[in-house]
Amino acid sequence: MSLFYDDLAIGQTFKAGPVTMDRDRIIAFGHEFDPQPQHLSEEAAKSSMFGELVASGWHTAAVTMRLMVEGACPSLASGAMGAGIEGITWPEPVRPGDVLMAESEIIDLRPSRSRSDRGIMKLKTTTRRADGVVVQVVTGIILVPRRVGVSAGT
Amino acid sequence: MSLFYDDLAIGQTFKAGPVTMDRDRIIAFGHEFDPQPQHLSEEAAKSSMFGELVASGWHTAAVTMRLMVEGACPSLASGAMGAGIEGITWPEPVRPGDVLMAESEIIDLRPSRSRSDRGIMKLKTTTRRADGVVVQVVTGIILVPRRVGVSAGT
Repeated sequence: MSLFYDDLAIGQTFKAGPVTMDRDRIIAFGHEFDPQPQHLSEEAAKSSMFGELVASGWHTAAVTMRLMVEGACPSLASGAMGAGIEGITWPEPVRPGDVLMAESEIIDLRPSRSRSDRGIMKLKTTTRRADGVVVQVVTGIILVPRRVGVSAGT
Repeated sequence: MSLFYDDLAIGQTFKAGPVTMDRDRIIAFGHEFDPQPQHLSEEAAKSSMFGELVASGWHTAAVTMRLMVEGACPSLASGAMGAGIEGITWPEPVRPGDVLMAESEIIDLRPSRSRSDRGIMKLKTTTRRADGVVVQVVTGIILVPRRVGVSAGT
């Protein structure tokens, strides 16, 4: 597939995964990027609010990006690119061994005001554990090329 | 320092850094979490929109988290925790060798409606290169404990 802005519809979904959250990668990510006790070791985590080892929210966000690169992105026309994030929530923690899936849904589409050759897609990606519990919701803004010759609204 | 919600003021700032963005870490992060050509190698990046190797925005976000854990977080009372992200923008790319600094500013404070023992801080963190160019702005929501005995608004 190679979907241009003009091929997309609100409500369209893309799925990706599963991926398993590895304990050693959770700890390595914590040491490199988010050295709070709950991300560093089982022992250190005992004294944290979580009481157990959990993944950094930024690790979950990065893993979700990987799922999106494998899931939604190959469907989009070459030249599509992220423009920013509108929000991230982490309703539940991610633990070692959790198996994550991501589902992205197009929740808004509008032509670009400044560039007639692309449109603006709002994509809400929900990351769930295998038991269905939501561990992250991220809403991203993605610029998607329009088909040549299609004029944009202003 | 051990700042409770009641000690904080809108406009208060916290600084952290510098940290240098290492080429090999940019590539390793790209391979693990964001395997788009611009993050994988100088050669692959030539065919991308960027035309050169640049860091994943999620790598910049993770490095900024590290700076916040070292910068703002040690000033906050034990029990402070992130509750989510209101937005992220990446106005300019981050390249190998870039030296990044982060400055966090409190832009809003309000008592929690559901929990009288904590308040809600909105923290805007701007990540800049050494030449002052902004490469990321992230706004996060952080729950901060109140001093014992202080009653919250509703």
